[in-house]
Amino acid sequence: MGQDNLLDEARSLFSAIPKDPPVLEHNPATPEKLKLGKMLYFEPRLSKTHNISCNSCHQIGRGGADGRPTSIGYSGQRGGRNAPTVLNSVFSTAQFWDGRAADLKEQAGGPIANPIEMGTPPEHAVEELKGIPGYVEAFGKAFPDEADPLTYDNIEKAVAVFEATLTTPDAPFDQYLKGDENALTAEAKEGLRLFVDKGCSSCHNGINVGGGMYAPFGVVEKPGSEFLPPNDKGRLQVTGKLDDAYVFKVPTLRNITLTSPYFHSGHAWDLKQAVAVMGATQLGTELGAEEVTKIVAFLRTLTGAQPQVTYPTLPASIPTTPRPAP
Amino acid sequence: MGQDNLLDEARSLFSAIPKDPPVLEHNPATPEKLKLGKMLYFEPRLSKTHNISCNSCHQIGRGGADGRPTSIGYSGQRGGRNAPTVLNSVFSTAQFWDGRAADLKEQAGGPIANPIEMGTPPEHAVEELKGIPGYVEAFGKAFPDEADPLTYDNIEKAVAVFEATLTTPDAPFDQYLKGDENALTAEAKEGLRLFVDKGCSSCHNGINVGGGMYAPFGVVEKPGSEFLPPNDKGRLQVTGKLDDAYVFKVPTLRNITLTSPYFHSGHAWDLKQAVAVMGATQLGTELGAEEVTKIVAFLRTLTGAQPQVTYPTLPASIPTTPRPAP
Repeated sequence: MGQDNLLDEARSLFSAIPKDPPVLEHNPATPEKLKLGKMLYFEPRLSKTHNISCNSCHQIGRGGADGRPTSIGYSGQRGGRNAPTVLNSVFSTAQFWDGRAADLKEQAGGPIANPIEMGTPPEHAVEELKGIPGYVEAFGKAFPDEADPLTYDNIEKAVAVFEATLTTPDAPFDQYLKGDENALTAEAKEGLRLFVDKGCSSCHNGINVGGGMYAPFGVVEKPGSEFLPPNDKGRLQVTGKLDDAYVFKVPTLRNITLTSPYFHSGHAWDLKQAVAVMGATQLGTELGAEEVTKIVAFLRTLTGAQPQVTYPTLPASIPTTPRPAP
Repeated sequence: MGQDNLLDEARSLFSAIPKDPPVLEHNPATPEKLKLGKMLYFEPRLSKTHNISCNSCHQIGRGGADGRPTSIGYSGQRGGRNAPTVLNSVFSTAQFWDGRAADLKEQAGGPIANPIEMGTPPEHAVEELKGIPGYVEAFGKAFPDEADPLTYDNIEKAVAVFEATLTTPDAPFDQYLKGDENALTAEAKEGLRLFVDKGCSSCHNGINVGGGMYAPFGVVEKPGSEFLPPNDKGRLQVTGKLDDAYVFKVPTLRNITLTSPYFHSGHAWDLKQAVAVMGATQLGTELGAEEVTKIVAFLRTLTGAQPQVTYPTLPASIPTTPRPAP
């Protein structure tokens, strides 16, 4: 089978990440909104104890995740699922492992208010930021036509606009999709061939090599409780449908080498192990060691140019700014 | 009294922050060492649970501090003293509130190993980083002449080199010291005059407007236990000398508007209150409200250009990299 054939097939299943970040519907980016969104993304005063920001669990420098099985909230409580990467999340069909948020805007407000994550009820988040003159000014500039620009809705909008810029173009695989046959090694191409032929690409496809659909964890064979904690029923908890038991959003595989540990449980530390488990549970296929190695060689080509973000200077608190919980 | 007089007097007491960061003795900066130091500064894998980095408590975007009375360590424990700013700390005579570290290099290793801060013993920090191929490479490049470049000593050296770049030149007060009489408002100049004449500058002087000496908290009048927790004896705990009871390093006042709350206890949220308490406890002077306002107007001129730091991309963990504590 020729390489052209593989490239054609790849192009029918996947697409390259564009150089420029996408535009959000009903939430256009302006320099002022983008600047505000970046400030909010790094803003620990959105957490109850003022020590956790979006970036604490979705770190710009760590593939958009935090490298822990599950994250640690403001009070030391552990989250229920592995923190998904923020990188390229704008391209995913929905947000969170169970897709309970339709888009980045809806997602952004979740962890701020979640009592075991940042622990700040929406009305308090607004009160907090209204107590910081620099934010009053920044929201006014970002939402200039609004009488009351500093709202929870606008916090979410601004964060979403910033997050939409966190894309990672120019991975070797993107270069390949654009026609550079040398961007992938022979081994990576064999891995891509296996990835398609074995059926991985049935779920992991599209621009994000995943992120576009839902699937039960355990299509063919139920994974061990190590990887599928029985008390987490996945999307069933969102839809209430029994068919959605243990159903999760298929995660993106972009930048996968940067975001161990894997699975919603965060209990697979080795990408090879994760690939083998996927073969067995989702495809009913016992992948050989060499096959796994080749697939991983392909997955390594999904790491793109990481975002270059200048750390924002956050506006100063004043004596009347609401203070952190002790 | 003419303004020239004030400027001359100011020049005899203070100096401007130079445009270029200073060179550390015996630890010259190279691009490779600087790049490594920045990575380490943002590296949560130096903490036991992999969720706390230097930047967690000394945030680049928050005046180099964290805006809490005391910081929260990896296990949720609170530190004993307010996190001092990292900004311009290279100019201070010693590090920590009690001066127990002679310089930035010696300081850098403290919080990593401190059992209530990052909780990683030095040998484990080295083992952790040796388990990450990107760091093995980066230390080799940063310390090219050493047989075993990845050591705790070199972690400290690299972090110190990065921290030495975190200076904030070009504050209005620096422009004034350089001869721009218009850089300070009339009110700020009156505040400067009071700052000198009332005696604040007896301790808060030099390039960092502080940071150059030790003084008892309560030279004239003992502060209330709200501001001086009786169980913290300050420098006595370092030197063992009774004379050093309640003695602390005089903190820098640079960027002071960004780094509330104040004092080693972090219990003063209002800069005006802090100035008034200082007047009473250190100088035996009851400062009037107008005097306090003027002094604060001067202190506001100490906020310089904040560091513009591009968030570093951290090297990936591999399956054998030591994992975080749960």
